Order: sequence, then C-alpha cells, then structure tokens
Amino acid sequence: MTSVVKTQALKEMAAACRKASRQVARLSSAKKDALLHGIAEQLESDEVSILAANAEDVSQARTAGLSGAMVDRLVLTPERLKGICAAVQEIADLPDPVGQMVRMWRRPNGIEVGQRRIPLGVIAMIYESRPNVTVDAAVLCLKAGNGIVLRGGSEAFHSNTALAASLHAALEAQGLPVAAVSLVPTTDRAAIGELLTLEEHIDLVIPRGGEGLIRYVAANSRIPVIKHYKGVCHLYVDETADLDVAVRLLLDGKASRPGVCNALETLLVHRGAVAWFLPAAAGALKARGVEIRGCEITRQVVPEALPATEGDYAAEFLDLIISVKVVEDMDAAIAHIDAFGSNHTEVIATEHLGNARRFQDSVDSSVVMVNASSRFSDGGELGLGAEIGISTTRLHAYGPMGLEALTTLKFVVTGEGQVRHPIQPE
Amino acid sequence: MTSVVKTQALKEMAAACRKASRQVARLSSAKKDALLHGIAEQLESDEVSILAANAEDVSQARTAGLSGAMVDRLVLTPERLKGICAAVQEIADLPDPVGQMVRMWRRPNGIEVGQRRIPLGVIAMIYESRPNVTVDAAVLCLKAGNGIVLRGGSEAFHSNTALAASLHAALEAQGLPVAAVSLVPTTDRAAIGELLTLEEHIDLVIPRGGEGLIRYVAANSRIPVIKHYKGVCHLYVDETADLDVAVRLLLDGKASRPGVCNALETLLVHRGAVAWFLPAAAGALKARGVEIRGCEITRQVVPEALPATEGDYAAEFLDLIISVKVVEDMDAAIAHIDAFGSNHTEVIATEHLGNARRFQDSVDSSVVMVNASSRFSDGGELGLGAEIGISTTRLHAYGPMGLEALTTLKFVVTGEGQVRHPIQPE
Repeated sequence: MTSVVKTQALKEMAAACRKASRQVARLSSAKKDALLHGIAEQLESDEVSILAANAEDVSQARTAGLSGAMVDRLVLTPERLKGICAAVQEIADLPDPVGQMVRMWRRPNGIEVGQRRIPLGVIAMIYESRPNVTVDAAVLCLKAGNGIVLRGGSEAFHSNTALAASLHAALEAQGLPVAAVSLVPTTDRAAIGELLTLEEHIDLVIPRGGEGLIRYVAANSRIPVIKHYKGVCHLYVDETADLDVAVRLLLDGKASRPGVCNALETLLVHRGAVAWFLPAAAGALKARGVEIRGCEITRQVVPEALPATEGDYAAEFLDLIISVKVVEDMDAAIAHIDAFGSNHTEVIATEHLGNARRFQDSVDSSVVMVNASSRFSDGGELGLGAEIGISTTRLHAYGPMGLEALTTLKFVVTGEGQVRHPIQPE
Repeated sequence: MTSVVKTQALKEMAAACRKASRQVARLSSAKKDALLHGIAEQLESDEVSILAANAEDVSQARTAGLSGAMVDRLVLTPERLKGICAAVQEIADLPDPVGQMVRMWRRPNGIEVGQRRIPLGVIAMIYESRPNVTVDAAVLCLKAGNGIVLRGGSEAFHSNTALAASLHAALEAQGLPVAAVSLVPTTDRAAIGELLTLEEHIDLVIPRGGEGLIRYVAANSRIPVIKHYKGVCHLYVDETADLDVAVRLLLDGKASRPGVCNALETLLVHRGAVAWFLPAAAGALKARGVEIRGCEITRQVVPEALPATEGDYAAEFLDLIISVKVVEDMDAAIAHIDAFGSNHTEVIATEHLGNARRFQDSVDSSVVMVNASSRFSDGGELGLGAEIGISTTRLHAYGPMGLEALTTLKFVVTGEGQVRHPIQPE
C-alpha cells in the first residue's frame, strides 16, 4: 500500500471514478439524500473500526514527534465522529443544486434557451491531516452529483482508509459503484504529481492545507485548480466609524479564533479616527493578549506597540498578533489592501453610506464587508449551507464555495425544427 | 521586434496590464460605452494604415506559400473592416454585466449577503490568423471591465500591430492607460510559453485556433485555461422524429457551413426510423454533395455510402462528409455520444416529450438541443449578444461564452456590527 503506485493504476482509478460519476450525476435528489443518510448511519455503526484505525495514526504521529496541535487535529473521538455524522445529515437536508434552471429565454425565431445546473464531474481533493475533510468533501461532492478522488495526508492514512470503507459500504448498500469515492491508496507524495496530469478524468482540483502544498499543486497541475494560499484580512476603521462597532469587529476578527483564515491580520485606521479609536482598540487588544505591531503614528499613540515591518503587513500571523497602520484616507486604505491583501476578506467600519458603498465597489477581494465581522467569511455563516473551501482564484468561484461551486451550467435548447439557413429539402 | 522577448519584458507588460485593468474595472457603463464607440471611430479613421499593414501580411503569406483559404482568412478589405467596426458598436450596445447583483439574502443574525458581478481581471488571448479576433476579443474584455493580453498569429503580426495602435489611440483619447490592451510585441513562439507562467498577473487564458495550439497551451499553462479542442456534434434521429424536421436539421447542420465547430459530424438513427428516414436523408445529402460514411445497416439502405471506421466516428471532418450509425435505441445513441462526443453540441429530433426530456437530461454536452439546428450553438444565436469563444471545459463556463463568462461574483456583506462570538469590549 505504501509503495509507489504506478501511473497506470492511478489512471484506472480516475477513469473508474469518471464512469461512476456519470451514474451519480443522474441520481434523483431523493436517492442522493438516501445515500447521504446511509453514509451517516454507516459511519456510526463503524465507530469501533474507525476509532481503532485513528488510534493507529495518532500513535504513529506521537512516535514521529508531531506537535500537540497537529496530533489534536488528527484525533477522532466518539464525539467528533458524531459531529461528522451530524454534518452529513445537514448536507443531506440542503436543497439539491442539480437540475435548477437558472434562467430561460426565448429567441425571436422561437427557440427556447435555458441554462441548467449540472454536476461538475470529477473533483480531486488534496488535503492534509484532519480526517473529517474526507467525509465532508466526499458528501458535498456526492450531493452535487459528482465523483471524488481523495488524497489525504499521510498522517491520517489509516483513518481515511477506514472512513472510505464506510463510504463504500454505504454506496454499495444503495447499489452504487464504490469508485464514485476513490481514495488514492498510497501516502507516496509522487502520487500527487501523477494525479495532477489526469486532466482527461478529473475536472477540478481543490488543495487544502499549508501554503507549500497549495503552491506545489498550483505549479504542477494540468487540471484547473481552485485554491487560496492564505487569508490576510483587513479591518479598515473609517473616521465615520462607530466606536463600539469598530472595537467589536476588531476583537471578534482578531481574538475569537486567531488560527483561521478569516481572522484579521491588519488594522487600518483613518487618520481622523486615531485619537478616539486607537487608545480604546489598543486597550481591548491588550486585555485579550494581542501583540500590536504598528506604524510610527500608531506607536506614538500606543507606546507598547512594536514597530511593524513591511513583512508584518504581508503576514498571515495565525496568532494573537496584529499589524496596525494609520492611513491618510480611504483611498490609502484601499491602496494598502491592493498591495498587501490576499483577496480573501476585507471589512470597513463606517456609518457613512457613501463610504460603505465606495469601499464595497473598490475593494477587489472575494468578500467585502461593511460593519460585519470577517469571521462570517465562511460558507455556513454566509448561508451557503456548507463549504468545500474558499477560493481566491477569480475563475469559477470566488470566496466561500458551497454546493453550487461544485456544479456548472449547460445550455438546453428546444425548438420545433428551426434552422439557421433555411434550405429546401429535396 | 522579432527577437526573443525576455521574460522580464513580458512580465512587466502583464503587470502593467493588471494595473490598467483595475482602472478599467472601475469605469462606469457610460464610460466603457464611450470607449467602445471611440474604438469603432478610430478604426474607421485608421483604415488606410490598417489596410496597408494587412497588405504586408498578405504579401508575406503569399510568398511563404500559405493556402488560398488561409490567406483569405487573413485578408482585410474596407468591407471587412466596416464589419469589424459594426461588431464593436453592437458590443457597446449590449447591457453591462458588471455590477449586477445576481442575488441577495438576509441571514438570521441580520447581515445582508449578496453576490455581485465584477470583472475577471486580466485575460490572455492566444489565437491564430484572423485579425478580427484582435478587435473582438479586446472589445469584449473591455466591455466586461477587464484588461487583455493579446498574442495573435505570426502571419497577422503587422495587421495586429496596426489594429492595436488604433485601440491604443482610442484608450488614450479617453484618458485610459494603453496597457489595458497589451499586444505581445513578438512572433516568437517561446513568448507563449513565457506568458503561460505569469499566473500572478493573468487570470484566464483563452486559446483559439488549431488543436495543436490549444493542446500546447493546456499542457503548459499555470493559468486556468478555457478551451475547446473540437466540435464533434451529433444529430440523433429518434423513431418518434418528424421527417421534415429531421431532414431540415441534418442539412442545416451538415451542409450550411461545414467548416465550423457547430456543424454536424455524425448522424445517429434509431433502428425504427431507418426505413422512412435514411433514404430521404441520403437523397438530401447527396443533392448537397455530402459524402456518407456509414455502418453496415446504413450501407444496406444507402448503397453508395462508404464504410465508416471507428476513426470516422471520432473525426471533426470540417468538410462535406458525415458519418452515420444506426442505433438500437436512445440509450445506445447516448452511449455513442458519451464515447465519441466532444462535449460541444448534440441534437435530438423527436416529437415525443419524454424522449426529448430524457435526452436533455442524459447528454453531458455543453449545449443539448431538441428539434433545433446545432448551428445555433453560438453566443450570438443563443442570445448572449456576442461570443468570445466556446468552452467544453466544465469549469467557470460551459458552452458559448458571452460577456458574463468574462466576469466573476464577489460577496458583499452589510451589517451593523454583528460578530460571530460576541465578547464585551473593555
């Protein structure tokens, strides 16, 4: 299992997944929901074997000296498995995006043209550690009528194999081909490179994990990749902001969960807000244990702030650290975001309607918020029901990706014999 | 000009285009329309220099021994240039896709979430011969608020340079940066390879031309590519078809313009339609000079038909040749399309509602038609206003691509201080 998988074997796996995906694509909503409920039940009844496989991964990770945080991300408990099953049931209950006719019109010649939502095809997911992604990603892809090729992290190999066995049992119970969910049966990193050449069988690659993995996938894939490298999210406090709102957004964005991609990394403050906002902000941050790295003006107002380097403004700290910069006006804030942002999520705090509109118009990021926390930049929180990832690639999907991002639109045309250049048949 | 352009120069060109694209993205609809009308006027007033540059290309092409058909595609005449200008005016008159709020909803916590259409960014167009593509592509990209990098065929280098000069003059007249339309200033093929690595500055590559060029771009690009290799379009005549409709669709699809990608290449006939349809179809095709390559049953009914090989069913003839196959039933027709189709356009002729629905549901291609000619598979004919290309890539756009395919959606969120984990500020 751990030896090099030959290109041929991977190719056959992907081809089988393509074939199986055609069957999944044609399932009714009811059948897909029955499959998802079946998956949740199967995972519950396979609890013992899943937790045993996970224990093996965890013990190997400890032996290999992985950090406590990394081991924690790997661990499955009965409660975490219940959480995974609950998420599957929730996805089953979401509306089916497939078959939706997003619009329809009639041409002057009488033909009726519509665009109908159909599954994307086969999606490859390349990810690290957390075993819940295995189930989440598979279930989202199935719900949207797709096949999925999974390539999880080597640390979670036994867990993923056990989870995939449950998924396969549930597929079989519904008379569906197990190849619809294909797990790459090796931890060999070379398999990723091979996978990325199979453009004939795979329509989309979604990498999730560290920036290194994502850059490797983006640089080596022949298949379209949807990704985000990092989230350098900004809060811009305008001179027209409400003090309470601005402080609230700052604390929620920076301190509620600093290790996630929609946490704030940089605070931009309008020169006119410095006097009444910065001292309150600094006090609140200090009380939460947040380190401040600021520009010169910031350091005049907040003496304990460390000096910010250019690198600090580009950094995704993922920690209780924030960079702060005082800007001349909103245009300077927007220019800073253009230069240092990552197209993820930016927030303005303002009570001025015109400024709110201009910020939302001018900032290029995938999610642009007015008076709302950057931490809402998440598929579930925005109301997409679930999330398979976040895209800062502008093509196909931009921002949090829900079920719809796993579909595409085909044209359906109906007429009664219309032709473009009428010619008389013999 | 014809020497190797250094990577650095191309990179700077793309970076300048990215910067200029931000300005184009923020233009009002009225400003963009004024720019487009200005382009049409500029092209008209530059007629002499454009035709002179084109004459140089044409004379070089003749000296190089290019075929008459290829030279014809290259030639610009006063009439053709007028046609190009008219197309620009038509694109100016299309509705602006940018800024459209495609949907909006409110979450239980009161935040309002919307998805707004924004420009894609920078699009690179890599294409062969026809100089009209230079203007068409540039104008469509500008109308959708994008920057464009153009890399045309070497045979049209002088024409493209002259056309780009007009585009630049029109941009300057509106006070806009000429880098918004950047022409790669070399015919060196290596420049294509360099261009395809500039993922930081270019969001999308659209190749148009022969299959060789397209495969080269797809295999070497780090930037997402939207493409179609070929159009192997099918007409399936069901046993429930109307004879007149079926013959009309066949003749329009095959004989009205055989050299285009939405022409028919294969006719599939239900066993139950053979007796009453095939003789009439063969007669009509013969009268139009179409060569028939058929399966055994076809050849029993149409003695002059040549035997069809497996290769004939995969071929895009682009000529007055059609492959014909008799199938057991609709499922066999769908299986044939799955195996030999190119995901471009397929047509069913049927009077049976259930069969029409099942064909449209089951066929995976980007355009699936009932009782309408495959020749309508075109952005203009389907009502998209104009077309920048056709995609058989399922990601982002599938089928004919109009202005909307040159945009993406960003999330805009508005609240009044909502946070995800309320914590009291100090």
